[in-house]
Amino acid sequence: TIQELNDTNEVGIVRGLAWTSVGGDTLQIEVNIMPGKGDFCLTGQLGDVMKESAQAGISYIRSVSAQYNIPEEFFRKHDIHIHIPEGAVPKDGPSAGVTMATAMISAITGIPVRADVAMTGEITLRGRVLPIGGLKEKLLAAKNAGMKTVFVPAKNRADVEEISREIKKGLDIRYAETMEDILPGALVTALPEKKAPKKKKV
Amino acid sequence: TIQELNDTNEVGIVRGLAWTSVGGDTLQIEVNIMPGKGDFCLTGQLGDVMKESAQAGISYIRSVSAQYNIPEEFFRKHDIHIHIPEGAVPKDGPSAGVTMATAMISAITGIPVRADVAMTGEITLRGRVLPIGGLKEKLLAAKNAGMKTVFVPAKNRADVEEISREIKKGLDIRYAETMEDILPGALVTALPEKKAPKKKKV
Amino acid sequence: TIQELNDTNEVGIVRGLAWTSVGGDTLQIEVNIMPGKGDFCLTGQLGDVMKESAQAGISYIRSVSAQYNIPEEFFRKHDIHIHIPEGAVPKDGPSAGVTMATAMISAITGIPVRADVAMTGEITLRGRVLPIGGLKEKLLAAKNAGMKTVFVPAKNRADVEEISREIKKGLDIRYAETMEDILPGALVTALPEKKAPKKKKV
Amino acid sequence: TIQELNDTNEVGIVRGLAWTSVGGDTLQIEVNIMPGKGDFCLTGQLGDVMKESAQAGISYIRSVSAQYNIPEEFFRKHDIHIHIPEGAVPKDGPSAGVTMATAMISAITGIPVRADVAMTGEITLRGRVLPIGGLKEKLLAAKNAGMKTVFVPAKNRADVEEISREIKKGLDIRYAETMEDILPGALVTALPEKKAPKKKKV
Amino acid sequence: TIQELNDTNEVGIVRGLAWTSVGGDTLQIEVNIMPGKGDFCLTGQLGDVMKESAQAGISYIRSVSAQYNIPEEFFRKHDIHIHIPEGAVPKDGPSAGVTMATAMISAITGIPVRADVAMTGEITLRGRVLPIGGLKEKLLAAKNAGMKTVFVPAKNRADVEEISREIKKGLDIRYAETMEDILPGALVTALPEKKAPKKKKV
Amino acid sequence: TIQELNDTNEVGIVRGLAWTSVGGDTLQIEVNIMPGKGDFCLTGQLGDVMKESAQAGISYIRSVSAQYNIPEEFFRKHDIHIHIPEGAVPKDGPSAGVTMATAMISAITGIPVRADVAMTGEITLRGRVLPIGGLKEKLLAAKNAGMKTVFVPAKNRADVEEISREIKKGLDIRYAETMEDILPGALVTALPEKKAPKKKKV
Ligand SMILES: [Ca+2]
Ligand SMILES: [Ca+2]
Ligand SMILES: [Ca+2]
Ligand SMILES: [Ca+2]
Ligand SMILES: [Ca+2]
Ligand SMILES: [Ca+2]
Ligand SMILES: [Ca+2]
Ligand SMILES: [Ca+2]
Ligand SMILES: [Ca+2]
Ligand SMILES: [Ca+2]
Ligand SMILES: [Ca+2]
Ligand SMILES: [Ca+2]
Repeated sequence: TIQELNDTNEVGIVRGLAWTSVGGDTLQIEVNIMPGKGDFCLTGQLGDVMKESAQAGISYIRSVSAQYNIPEEFFRKHDIHIHIPEGAVPKDGPSAGVTMATAMISAITGIPVRADVAMTGEITLRGRVLPIGGLKEKLLAAKNAGMKTVFVPAKNRADVEEISREIKKGLDIRYAETMEDILPGALVTALPEKKAPKKKKV
Repeated sequence: TIQELNDTNEVGIVRGLAWTSVGGDTLQIEVNIMPGKGDFCLTGQLGDVMKESAQAGISYIRSVSAQYNIPEEFFRKHDIHIHIPEGAVPKDGPSAGVTMATAMISAITGIPVRADVAMTGEITLRGRVLPIGGLKEKLLAAKNAGMKTVFVPAKNRADVEEISREIKKGLDIRYAETMEDILPGALVTALPEKKAPKKKKV
Repeated sequence: TIQELNDTNEVGIVRGLAWTSVGGDTLQIEVNIMPGKGDFCLTGQLGDVMKESAQAGISYIRSVSAQYNIPEEFFRKHDIHIHIPEGAVPKDGPSAGVTMATAMISAITGIPVRADVAMTGEITLRGRVLPIGGLKEKLLAAKNAGMKTVFVPAKNRADVEEISREIKKGLDIRYAETMEDILPGALVTALPEKKAPKKKKV
Repeated sequence: TIQELNDTNEVGIVRGLAWTSVGGDTLQIEVNIMPGKGDFCLTGQLGDVMKESAQAGISYIRSVSAQYNIPEEFFRKHDIHIHIPEGAVPKDGPSAGVTMATAMISAITGIPVRADVAMTGEITLRGRVLPIGGLKEKLLAAKNAGMKTVFVPAKNRADVEEISREIKKGLDIRYAETMEDILPGALVTALPEKKAPKKKKV
Repeated sequence: TIQELNDTNEVGIVRGLAWTSVGGDTLQIEVNIMPGKGDFCLTGQLGDVMKESAQAGISYIRSVSAQYNIPEEFFRKHDIHIHIPEGAVPKDGPSAGVTMATAMISAITGIPVRADVAMTGEITLRGRVLPIGGLKEKLLAAKNAGMKTVFVPAKNRADVEEISREIKKGLDIRYAETMEDILPGALVTALPEKKAPKKKKV
Repeated sequence: TIQELNDTNEVGIVRGLAWTSVGGDTLQIEVNIMPGKGDFCLTGQLGDVMKESAQAGISYIRSVSAQYNIPEEFFRKHDIHIHIPEGAVPKDGPSAGVTMATAMISAITGIPVRADVAMTGEITLRGRVLPIGGLKEKLLAAKNAGMKTVFVPAKNRADVEEISREIKKGLDIRYAETMEDILPGALVTALPEKKAPKKKKV
């Protein structure tokens, strides 16, 4: 299977988790950043919900770019291409949101993503991580693909606790409330030191 | 559930109210404003009516921007993204009009929205608030989500009065004829002092 | 109902008349003019015919703009938004043509429209007013909404004459062959003095 | 009926002929030319074939514009709007090609079209006039609308000869092989003297 | 019928061949080149395959333009319109590829096409001529329209040899492997002397 | 058949392999590069998956362009057209990914592709080669078309080993994990010496 290919830490490639009625699977999300004029290209037979999820991710990244020293004009001077092999298989749903966002941040900053990390979770404009379904099948697929760490939404904690120890053994399952809970563990090095965010909670 | 996440006052996040045949629900509308070139992005599986409602809201805001000291070129130099989680659930109807408009004004001005406020109502180009349906289910959902104040259209006053005291107990229900009846109570601080409006009623 | 809201003369708001198999209704057409780059936005679930009707109206206005001292570059430097509440109700047909055109002229010139005036009629590129249907139901709706004056197409004179006195009592029904028969009575003040038109009939 | 309105020679308005299974009709094609940036707008519920026919007409005019002293940049600096009332009635077919082309030439040059002239015929990129159907019904409609002169395709001569004298009486029927056979008789004054055409037949 | 119109050699008009289950037909492809900004317009109810065929033709021409002294900026500074009368008849298929390409080259260079020449064949990006169907019906239609010379794909040689002498009598049938086999015989004068091509076979 | 045409090494033409329920076939992918403004045109009745596959290929090439001395602005100053004859036959699927990418690289660099090489394989944004189906039929078609060398995905090695020696005899079958395994054998000369890649695995 394709999964084994990604046995080194790479820039712009992140392992996501999918499930269907016949079981779980992993899928590798690839992101290329190229000099360009702000185009955003999504390929791999992605459905509407998945495309919107990618848009939410890129808006989240744009809104926090100042914190990560990404220059303001970066998004107007580059094209971003997200591709999910296998190109003939239709894919949809919001649960690859955090995966696509992580792959984009890796590609933009040039920091590789750990090859033994997988993740699943809906993303919002503010980087909140919302719960998803099919967790049992997804964890099984992650384990079969040799993953060591899996990020899941904090809102799915109850679901995880119901899953048998057998399945979870050997997996480091981490709960994420926001993207900030995922990035330090998924990227091989820390993001550039944050500047003070422009907007603060009150 | 997702609702509890928003327990602090935030910029660009406003609680709306939805209802279906099986009951009411709250939904958090998120708005990001980014340096850009005037693009307007709507995600979360929004239907035609809801998208038009967002467009009416942004036109209303643009038409009164001078009153709120928003620079004339603001809308040409920024992109606005409205997202409504949960991304896989189709949403439609005009009743989130005032909610989306309030979230946009918060995001543009940087003034946070009170976390314990919810609202529902169709918006027109002039900021008038038109009546909506499902009020009983919506009020119940607001109460269950811990809301303290709910803005409803003044045109729904009769509908509210028919709803049992049980449901309304503990909710501060306020009637709005225009957006100007909503903003002071929804934002944590006052909007910048108004300049004289450019057009006056005769 | 919504109708009573518009009890003062406003800029860019004009009362139109609609009818269905279950009776007539009035609808308030709202127009906002904003600094922009010539975009033309139509919301309120308008059908193809109604959208084309709005386009005919704007072309008519552009073609006579010199007569009304509207600067040539006005339409390239502003965005025009036409909205018809109630946003969830689909609307179609050509009979709001004169209403949308009047609302646009009011919004462009800043001259308010009389709140007690309603109108119905198809518009052509040259501002001719073509006949429409459902006149009896429309007049009744206008009357119920408290209208004093109703503009109808001159080509509908025979239809009006067939309608009972009962219905027409208290309504000042005026016949229009062109937009020039409507504007002086609908706007609260005269349009700026006309310059000589550029093209004359021969 | 609408037909009688156009009792004076006007710029940019030409009478076309239509037919359905229930008989013929005339339709007035209106063209507005406005300062703009080359947009081409078609309204009146026109079908695909009719829209393409309008495009063929405008390309023909552009290709011969040098002959008629129309400046080269004219089409990039103006918008053209073709509208065919009655806006709610779907219209299609290629037979209004010559009519739309004549109306555009009138609007561009400012030369009025004779009010008592009607025409029918498909147009090609080179201004050739191709045959059309429903000729008997169209001639009858032209006559009933008070037309004096009707241009028909030369390729329809045999069809015309088969129609009874009764119908044709009082109509000056002229056969056109190209647009150049129509323009002198349809416009009230001659087009500006031609410059030598750039391309000649060999 | 329309065919006889084109009895002189013209610039930008080439006779193609079509066939249906009820027999063959000729169709005249018209091309206009106008000062513009690179727009490419296709009218005459052309289907997807035929539109792509036209795009392949224009790309072929652009790729060899240096050989024919067509300035590099030509295609950015002109609009190209391909129209195939009769506008109400849907047309599709790849076999008009060489015909559309020849008409475009004629229109671009100003060299007329021989009026007694017809042609059929799919074109590729490199100007190769691929085989087509309906050859018998097409040759018959060409003959009936008074054509003297017909270009057919070399790959159809076997098909032509199976057709009866009766049909082929009086037709000069020429086999084409590439566009370079067609142009000298179709254009009334030679194309400008070729410059050395930029890319050579190895 | 068409296959024999390409008996010389050409720039921008690569032989792909297709299969249907009735057997395999070869198809020649043609690429033209023209001075332009970054447009990307795909013709030949390509389906969604195939179009996305081409987009993945072009993004891969853009992302490694620095390594092959392709100037950064190349893709903004040229148009790329991919065409697959026979234009009337619908084509789809991801397995022409490597073929389209090879044809594009040949066209961009001007280095011809060996005429006796065929290939099949899905491509990802990073140039990885993913497995495909129909291998037996494809190898047979390659052999029948006189191919000497066939590149297949390394992930299909087991599938190849199951195919009978009879079919594989005379074919040099090479396994590719990435595009870098294909290019040296497919192009007639080496690509320009690589510069150090900008991003390295960790
Ligand atoms: Ca898989
Ligand atoms: Ca959908
Ligand atoms: Ca919910
Ligand atoms: Ca809808
Ligand atoms: Ca109403
Ligand atoms: Ca329609
Ligand atoms: Ca009529
Ligand atoms: Ca059609
Ligand atoms: Ca014919
Ligand atoms: Ca198709
Ligand atoms: Ca084949
Ligand atoms: Ca598809």
